[in-house]
Amino acid sequence: MNGKPLVSIISAGMSKFGKHEGSLGREIFSQAAAEAFNRCPKLDPKKEVKAMFIGHMGESYEHQGHMGATIADWIGMRGVAATRVEAACGSSGAALRTGIYAVLSGLSDVAIVGGVEKMTHRTTAEVTEYLAMAADYPFEQFHGITFPGLFAMMATAHMHSYGTTEQQFGKIAVKNHHHGSLNPKAHMQKEITLETVLSSKYVAWPLKLFDCSLISDGASCIILTKPEIANKYTDQPVHIIGTGQATDAIGLYERESFTSLRSTKLAAEEAYKLANITPDKVDLAEVHDCFTIAELIHYEDLGFCKEGEGGKLVDSGATTLGGKIPVNTSGGLKSKGHPVGATGTAQAYEIYLQLTGQAEKRQVKDAKIGLTHNIGGSGATAAVHIYRNDQ
Amino acid sequence: MNGKPLVSIISAGMSKFGKHEGSLGREIFSQAAAEAFNRCPKLDPKKEVKAMFIGHMGESYEHQGHMGATIADWIGMRGVAATRVEAACGSSGAALRTGIYAVLSGLSDVAIVGGVEKMTHRTTAEVTEYLAMAADYPFEQFHGITFPGLFAMMATAHMHSYGTTEQQFGKIAVKNHHHGSLNPKAHMQKEITLETVLSSKYVAWPLKLFDCSLISDGASCIILTKPEIANKYTDQPVHIIGTGQATDAIGLYERESFTSLRSTKLAAEEAYKLANITPDKVDLAEVHDCFTIAELIHYEDLGFCKEGEGGKLVDSGATTLGGKIPVNTSGGLKSKGHPVGATGTAQAYEIYLQLTGQAEKRQVKDAKIGLTHNIGGSGATAAVHIYRNDQ
Repeated sequence: MNGKPLVSIISAGMSKFGKHEGSLGREIFSQAAAEAFNRCPKLDPKKEVKAMFIGHMGESYEHQGHMGATIADWIGMRGVAATRVEAACGSSGAALRTGIYAVLSGLSDVAIVGGVEKMTHRTTAEVTEYLAMAADYPFEQFHGITFPGLFAMMATAHMHSYGTTEQQFGKIAVKNHHHGSLNPKAHMQKEITLETVLSSKYVAWPLKLFDCSLISDGASCIILTKPEIANKYTDQPVHIIGTGQATDAIGLYERESFTSLRSTKLAAEEAYKLANITPDKVDLAEVHDCFTIAELIHYEDLGFCKEGEGGKLVDSGATTLGGKIPVNTSGGLKSKGHPVGATGTAQAYEIYLQLTGQAEKRQVKDAKIGLTHNIGGSGATAAVHIYRNDQ
Repeated sequence: MNGKPLVSIISAGMSKFGKHEGSLGREIFSQAAAEAFNRCPKLDPKKEVKAMFIGHMGESYEHQGHMGATIADWIGMRGVAATRVEAACGSSGAALRTGIYAVLSGLSDVAIVGGVEKMTHRTTAEVTEYLAMAADYPFEQFHGITFPGLFAMMATAHMHSYGTTEQQFGKIAVKNHHHGSLNPKAHMQKEITLETVLSSKYVAWPLKLFDCSLISDGASCIILTKPEIANKYTDQPVHIIGTGQATDAIGLYERESFTSLRSTKLAAEEAYKLANITPDKVDLAEVHDCFTIAELIHYEDLGFCKEGEGGKLVDSGATTLGGKIPVNTSGGLKSKGHPVGATGTAQAYEIYLQLTGQAEKRQVKDAKIGLTHNIGGSGATAAVHIYRNDQ
C-alpha cells in the first residue's frame, strides 16, 4: 500500500496546554473532544465511533487507572470500546498507531485516538519520580538516574563525537519559544533569547533549565476514518500515508549508540517506506523535543540532515518557521508544553492544522507533507507518522 | 465476516500463577513467551512478529511503566512495535482485541498479545489501593470504597432481586477450586468444601474470604496470525471467530443496574454476531470470577441462563467439569489466581489448550467452541472473545 492513504483524519481537537487548576484529566480531555466533535458536525460520535484509544502515561498523577473507560464515560461515549495505551511519553503516538490498526481492520470504520495528562498539581519531585518510571527500574531508576541525566549523557556524547555546542542546543529552545509565541494554545507564549538559555541554571550538565520541556496539563485527540468515506465527513481530510513504530533496549546502558535512537530509525524507515517518500519531501515536522538535544538527534535519525550535522542544521535556520523544513511550529514540548500522554496526538493536531491551512500566525506556506515523531522514555519507544493533504 | 475466522492462534504460553519471589514481572513474562515460542518452532519471532500488545494494569507494583518496550527487550524482541494496553483487570482482554486489529489491518501478519503482573511482593493494603485505581477516583476511591465493597453491593442487589443465596456464591468457589486442583499451573491446587467457604471471614457482607479471587504473580501470552497462513506454523490452529469490547460508566453509582453489566452484554452481542452463534452453542467458557457473585452475573449477561437464574445454574451443576457448559475449567481467577494484567490472555490460553486437546485432567470432551470474558474494574470495561477449532 505504499504511498496510498492508510486512514484519514476528519477532525482534531486540543485543550489549551498549561495549568488547569482544579480540573480532572477527564475534564481537560472533554475540551479536546468537544473541539473535535464541533469541527465535524456530520459525525454522530455516539453512533459511528467504534473504537477509542487514549494515550495516558501515569496512573500516579491522579490516582486513576482505567482511563479508557473513564474518558469514554465523561465525553458522552459510554459503550464504545475504549482502551488506554501507554508507551511512556510516546503514549498517544502509540495510540495513533493502534487507531490506524483498528480502522484498517474493518471492525471500526471511525476511531478516536487521543491522550491526556494532568501533572501540574503535583510537586516537581513527584513528577520527576513518576516520569522516571519510563526508565528501567532495577538498573536506572533505582540508582537515582532521572530523565535530565539520561539526556545529558546523550548530549555529552554528541558534543564529544561531533563538536556540538551548548549554543546549538540553546538555539533550539529559542526557536521553539518563538514558534510557541505564535500558538494561542501553547503553555509558554513568550520569546526568549539565547542569553536566557545559556545563563539559566544547569539541571544536568550540559543541559540547563531552558533546555528542558515543561510540566503541563493538557489533552488532544484526532478522529480517523477510512479514506474511502472521509469525504462524507469533511471537505478537508488529511491522509496518514505512513506509520512506523519500534522499540529499543529499555535502558540507555544497553544501547548501541548514545548519539542516535535506533527506535526512531526503525520507525522512520517503516513510515517512509509505506509513504513511499524520502525525508527531503517532508515540508514540516513535529518532533519529540523533551530536551533540546533530543530534537537535534531526531533531525539526524529522521534523515533531515546527515549524522553528526544536527548542530549545523540548527545554525542554518532551516528548522525555523520560514526555513526549508520548519520543525515544531507548535512550539514543541519545549514551549507548547508536555502533558506527556497528550503529546503524540497534539503533534498530529498541529500537522492537521498546518495541512488544512488553519495554523494562523505560524502557518507554513504550501505545506503538503508533514511528519510527527513521538518517543517514550529515553527512546525505548518511537512512533513516526507521515501525513499528506491531497488538495 | 460473520462466522469466519478473524485471526488464528498458533501458539500460547503461560507461567505458573502464584508467588514468584525475587522475580521481576518481565522475567515472569519470559517464561510465558518461552513456552509459546517453543510450542511453535516454525515461527521466527524476531523476524516475523511485527506487533506486540502487553496487558499490564499497574505501574505502581514494580514502579515500572513503559512495560511494552520493557517486555520486548527482555524476551529478545528488541525492535518490535510493542505497546502496553491497560483496561484495569481487563488489560489483556483489551490487548487481545488490539492484537486482532493489528493482524486484520494487514500491517502485522503475526502479533503477540499477552499480559503480566507482579503483585505478591506488596502488602495487601498496597494491592488493595493499587487495584482501587480501576474505580472512579473522585466519587469512589476517595471515599474509601474498594473492590470487595463494590461487588458486595452487586451481590446484595442480586440476592434482593432474585433470592440468590450465599450458598450459591459458595458453590462457585468450590467448583473453581475443584477445577484448579486439576491445573498444575494454578496458584491454589486444592479442593475446598462449601463449609470452608461459608465459615470463612466476611470481607464485605455477603462476600467472604473464599468468595474473593487471589493476589498472584503471573504472565500469559498467545500468538496470532492470519487464518490463511496459520497452517504454515501449526497443524492445530484455534480460530478466533468473535470479538467484542465495550464500556459502561466508570462508577457503579451511575449504572442502570447493579445485577447486570451492560458492558458485558454489549461486548457479548458484538462477539456472538461476528461468530454467528447463539450462547447455547458455546461448549466451555472462562469468565471473570474476581468474586463469586461476578461469575454468577456473567452467566446471565452472557446468555448461559436467563436473567436472575444464575443461582439455579450453579445448583444444577451445569458449569462444573462434566456439565453442559463447564465454566472456568482452569480454576478461574478464584483458584488459578489473578495476576490482573495476565488474566485475559490466561483465559485464552486455557481455551487454546482445551480446543486442542491439551488440557489433560481437566479436558472437556469434544470441545469445539470456547468463550472468554474479561472485565476491568467493576465492569466499566468488558471484552468477550469466541474461539473455534475446525478440526
